[in-house]
Formats: sequence, C-alpha cells, structure tokens
Amino acid sequence: MKTKEKIIVLMSGGMDSTVCAAIAHSEFYDIHALHINYGQKTETREEQSFNDICSYYSIDNRLHVDIGYLKHIGGSSLLDTSIEISKADLLSKEIPNSYVPFRNANMLCIAVSWAEAIKATKIFIGAVQEDSSGYPDCRKDFFDAFQLMINQGTKPDTHIQIITPLLNMSKKEIIHTGNNLNAPLHLTWSCYGSEDKACGICDSCALRLRGFAQAECIDPIDYAIVPKYL
Amino acid sequence: MKTKEKIIVLMSGGMDSTVCAAIAHSEFYDIHALHINYGQKTETREEQSFNDICSYYSIDNRLHVDIGYLKHIGGSSLLDTSIEISKADLLSKEIPNSYVPFRNANMLCIAVSWAEAIKATKIFIGAVQEDSSGYPDCRKDFFDAFQLMINQGTKPDTHIQIITPLLNMSKKEIIHTGNNLNAPLHLTWSCYGSEDKACGICDSCALRLRGFAQAECIDPIDYAIVPKYL
Repeated sequence: MKTKEKIIVLMSGGMDSTVCAAIAHSEFYDIHALHINYGQKTETREEQSFNDICSYYSIDNRLHVDIGYLKHIGGSSLLDTSIEISKADLLSKEIPNSYVPFRNANMLCIAVSWAEAIKATKIFIGAVQEDSSGYPDCRKDFFDAFQLMINQGTKPDTHIQIITPLLNMSKKEIIHTGNNLNAPLHLTWSCYGSEDKACGICDSCALRLRGFAQAECIDPIDYAIVPKYL
Repeated sequence: MKTKEKIIVLMSGGMDSTVCAAIAHSEFYDIHALHINYGQKTETREEQSFNDICSYYSIDNRLHVDIGYLKHIGGSSLLDTSIEISKADLLSKEIPNSYVPFRNANMLCIAVSWAEAIKATKIFIGAVQEDSSGYPDCRKDFFDAFQLMINQGTKPDTHIQIITPLLNMSKKEIIHTGNNLNAPLHLTWSCYGSEDKACGICDSCALRLRGFAQAECIDPIDYAIVPKYL
C-alpha cells in the first residue's frame, strides 16, 4: 500500500476550517491537525470543537499550540476584554476591531515549522477572501507572498505548499461544499462572543447565519439571537 | 521635544543582536526589546544576558515571549536533547543540525504583531548572512520575501520595515562595530552548549572566537576550551 502524503490542516474548530479539513480528507491525505490558541475569549469552546472534529475524522496526530503572547500584545477586541467586540456591519469597508495583528502569519509560521520537521508537503488553511471580514491576512496576495517567503526561508530540500481551497468561495458555497462532503457542521463553533450559545450578533455569527440563509438550509447549532434581517 | 520613533529590536542576549541594538541605540530610536525563548538549551543564561543588556541601554519596554512549541515540534539539536550538537565545521557547506525549522520567520511574525499593535515602524534583527552557519532564514532573499509578506498581510495604514544592519558584515566587522559603539560585549552569551562557561566548540562559539581572532582583540567572556586552530 502506498504511504499517504503527509499534510497539515489548520483547524480552529470553526466552520470554514472544518470544511477545509473535509476537502483534505476527501483527497486521502494523512492529516496532521494543528489547533492554535491565541488567547481569544471563546478558546475553550473552540478547542472542544477541534477535538470533536478530529475524532469524527479519526485524526490522531493533533498539535495544540498556545500563542497567548498575542493577547499580551493586544490590539484586538478578540483578545482584549476592555474592547467590546463590534456588532456586525456586513456592509462596512472598515477592518473590524476583531482583527488580530498578523495572526494568520503567526499561525502559518508554526505550521511551516511543524511541516519542515515532519516532512509534510502541504498546509491547508480555510481562509476566505470573498464574503469575509476584510482582514488583510485573508487575501490571495498575502498567501502568495507567504508562499515565496517559505520557499526562501526553508531548507533547499523542503517543499511546502500553502493550500487555500476556500479562498474564493462564498459562505453559501462553503456550506454547500461542507454538506456535500458530510462535514460535521453540527460540531463546529464560529462565535467570537460567547461559549454556551452562539451570540448571533458578532461578525462571525452574522457571516455564518447569512451564509446559511443564502444556502437555504438550517444551521445545526443553537443561537441566542437570530437577527431579523437574515 | 520631538517624539522618538518607536522601533522593535530582537535581542537574544547574543553578540550579534547586541551589536544590532547598539546600532539602533546610536540612531536615537525609542527601543522596544523583544526576547524570544524557543526551548533552547541555554535559555536561562541568554535571558540573563538579555536583561543585563537592556539595563545597560536603559530599555524599559521589554517583551519576553515563550514559543516553547518549537521544542515539541523538534527537528533541531538546539532543542532536542537526544540530538548531540555538532562540533563546529566552519568549512562545511551543509546546514548544521542546530538549524531550528523556520525559527526566524516565527520570531519576526511576533515582532510584526507587536509592531502593528504599538505602531512601531521598524524591526531590527541581527541576522548575519556572510560568515554564518548557512541557515536558509538568515539570507537576504528570505528577508526581502518577508518584507513583501508584511506589506501584504498588515493593515493598509501599517508600515513596518525589517532592518538587518549586520546582514553583510563578517564577525570581525561586527566586533569592530560593537567596540566602536561601546556595545557591552562582556554581557553577551553566544554558546549553544552550556550555561556556565562558553563551551568553545559549538558552531556559535567557533564563529565568535574566529571573529575575535580575526579582529585581533580579546573576547571578554570566559571559555571552557579555546580550540588551538584559532
């Protein structure tokens, strides 16, 4: 039997990274799951989802990394309890205050270090450019630049590729893809604000709920509030 | 009085980053010092040097970040006690086993997050391409690629520049520059192998000792062994 190609999937426990894992799983890779805690308010709930989703896919190679230093550095409502998380404004062109400075670059660097150490060839990340919150580190130009930086900064015999299967998908398409692949969307957690029931009003909940509305199907998780405009 | 420009200097406690800090200090910046522990064997000694050097320069803004996850990821003799640190072979073209996968990228990402949060404009790093150990993440091409990645991955109004003043210096030139600027070389620690007296035989000691020999001056720190070929 041919050995499966070793890859890393960044898995937050949220819907996007779970659909990203579902895509990787459908391509028969040997998945190593990387979960990163960066001091966000809903970490405990996300970690539970991460573990549940790994178990669903029988992924035993799990690495949990704590980069709580981003919380000390601050600069984001996701990390700093003195900044209130803005209510969603899906029409705004502003970068929301939930932006964590350079978060995706920090997370990808950890994935590259792990990939180089275990000789994994690909890193899957469920970043979304279209229909997203406008974070600068979720855009194609950023991932292209990151890829060039990997090529320059690793050993000559290391070849690691960043894969962003959701980059140009809408939330609606992500939900359809997830459903088609039997992704365990009922196990995922997206809310930035609370850990018992999803708040329904933060950016992340609003984008998710709008996606389910557009996909014309029911979100399997519970919400405290479902805003009327959806 | 004009407010000084805020910058970040990566300071390991070693000689190169101390000379880098001396250069930044001579240019009258408001220095924020970043020290990163990545689970290396000589961390305690390096941290002592870091604090002593910050005190020498009256730097109060110090951030100590632990990225011990690199130790779990492994892949380097600096981190893994089961891999013996190679004795120096300064003529070898091979990347030595002390290479820590993608270490500089991980460290620079933390610096960028901090810089974006506090609105610092420059990150000084004492990397050396010439006369170095041949690590892929110490080369100009890597830093150029990293700069482009910062430009793409941060907010439109963020402008952060990576500064590598030592990149093309030999160890001899670094030592001369340090002496000319009164850098506290007596407070620095470079050895990879031990914490009481520098071992004299690891890559880092060998490069440092050869530099002092070429600069025709005395290294102010103590060594357990000074190899005869120097």
